Amino acid sequence: MDGNSHDTGTDPVVVALGGNTLLGERGPWTMDEQLAVIERTARQISDAIDAGHDIVLTHGNGPQVGNLLLQQERVSETPQLPLDVLVAETQAQIGYLLQQALDNELTDSPDFMTVVTQVVVDEDDPAFQNPTKPVGPFYTEAEAVEKSFETRKVSTGDRPYRRVVPSPEPVELVEGDEIARLVRRRNLVISAGGGGVPVVRESGLRGVEAVVDKDKSSQLLAEELDADTLVILTDVEFAYVNYTTPDQRPLHRISTEKLRAHLEAGEFGEGSMQPKIEACLRFVERGGERAVITSPDRLRDALAGEAGTQIRA
Amino acid sequence: MDGNSHDTGTDPVVVALGGNTLLGERGPWTMDEQLAVIERTARQISDAIDAGHDIVLTHGNGPQVGNLLLQQERVSETPQLPLDVLVAETQAQIGYLLQQALDNELTDSPDFMTVVTQVVVDEDDPAFQNPTKPVGPFYTEAEAVEKSFETRKVSTGDRPYRRVVPSPEPVELVEGDEIARLVRRRNLVISAGGGGVPVVRESGLRGVEAVVDKDKSSQLLAEELDADTLVILTDVEFAYVNYTTPDQRPLHRISTEKLRAHLEAGEFGEGSMQPKIEACLRFVERGGERAVITSPDRLRDALAGEAGTQIRA
Repeated sequence: MDGNSHDTGTDPVVVALGGNTLLGERGPWTMDEQLAVIERTARQISDAIDAGHDIVLTHGNGPQVGNLLLQQERVSETPQLPLDVLVAETQAQIGYLLQQALDNELTDSPDFMTVVTQVVVDEDDPAFQNPTKPVGPFYTEAEAVEKSFETRKVSTGDRPYRRVVPSPEPVELVEGDEIARLVRRRNLVISAGGGGVPVVRESGLRGVEAVVDKDKSSQLLAEELDADTLVILTDVEFAYVNYTTPDQRPLHRISTEKLRAHLEAGEFGEGSMQPKIEACLRFVERGGERAVITSPDRLRDALAGEAGTQIRA
Repeated sequence: MDGNSHDTGTDPVVVALGGNTLLGERGPWTMDEQLAVIERTARQISDAIDAGHDIVLTHGNGPQVGNLLLQQERVSETPQLPLDVLVAETQAQIGYLLQQALDNELTDSPDFMTVVTQVVVDEDDPAFQNPTKPVGPFYTEAEAVEKSFETRKVSTGDRPYRRVVPSPEPVELVEGDEIARLVRRRNLVISAGGGGVPVVRESGLRGVEAVVDKDKSSQLLAEELDADTLVILTDVEFAYVNYTTPDQRPLHRISTEKLRAHLEAGEFGEGSMQPKIEACLRFVERGGERAVITSPDRLRDALAGEAGTQIRA
């Protein structure tokens, strides 16, 4: 095979950026606020790159796709685009801001590239019979019953309803081979944003109204790239047992066996820490060397094994 | 240099898709209508690829970025993103739909990739002193005077005003080297959509509220790729002299010298055919072998030299 002279000596590290690495506190935010958060995240990532790690980035998109859903719902004279198209839009929205901030930090390295990424899901995935993932704006009960899509009561107060969509398992990254080739040639790549644009494979590819969990897609990307480490960045330095109780205890180094026992005991918050733990377990149980959960400011130390929750077989 | 074994034997062809290759008749359209148009365009492009041409795609984004501007203007509780971020979003919106439709046509070739592309402009470009490019929704005079951005009367009727933004010259594609490497290795690439995301280079890169003409960016891309042909697809098979008069005459084969004389005589519509002619002239005058203006249904024949307006030195 040609190109071996450019191949990386070290295996790549897939780093999944959570929403808090892209936005500040929840709630309304301005472009300047978003840029400040993204620039801080870019510095933390470039520190890790400077330390010699070959980093491949993925990211979430919850607030961003929610804003696009709200906007098009309110403006009836513009086309109502399906969710897959909106997920694609957020890949470039976030990818552009990240690649620019990273290019500004990493003046000596090749530029980061954002690759629009489709992820194949199985149209027989049971998730399509049971939509559970809340997306977009909150509605009153009266508004919710009028919607043409499925809604569910997800909180309390005046507007407790949200649209729910299926969250099927990721099966294959359509652009996976191309991304792997880029990474082998030491291109810096941002891909699979928002979990990837969900598509089913029939006679050809077709977008579907669903959202794929970004931690699961990051795990799949790490597996397809033969990454040695999967890092999931979130707003806490560690995963905890007995979280928010007096017995709260951070997990430092832990085996997959012990971590799975905690998971099965229901120790981790559904929709928050639980999917991250599941993605990490899947990665290591299928042969990955190490999975890490930590906060962006601890990324470099965590890659050195000195911070965060370190999960190994 | 490694990788020569995968380099292309033929020089690439840059094909710029105009708005009509992505949308049907002007006016409101549904997602199904847009998909039908994109699928037809994908068939025409795949015909040309099957005929042996190494095609690199770029595309416009006028209606799409206009919809995003309208949506966020109407929904004050979502962040008001600057124009550069919205241009990025349209790159993935259109790129995703195109790459999926092309993947479905080209089952034996590698997958198409959409690369989010920044284009550097000069912050001293005189365009920044004189915004001329209309974008987004139409306003009444009363609405226009209240806007925080520059507006201009661009038509007649009740809502003759639109926002106008600078349209500076493209200087450099930030991801140009990466795109060139992909193309040399026969990856199929969609890039520089909507003319590219406009940025200035100060201490680092910074997005600016502007729109770069997509035909000019396509010319720059073609030049950076050492393409032998630049094709600009539009809604007519030929460029015409005396267009829409009884003396209307299509241009078949024409030299840059003769074409420049027609341009200087004001033969081509400002904001429609004129920028296409200018981009074609610039490409051939700077050493490109051939530029072509034609409609998508004539692409394959035009690449064989048998259709469209063929411009050579």
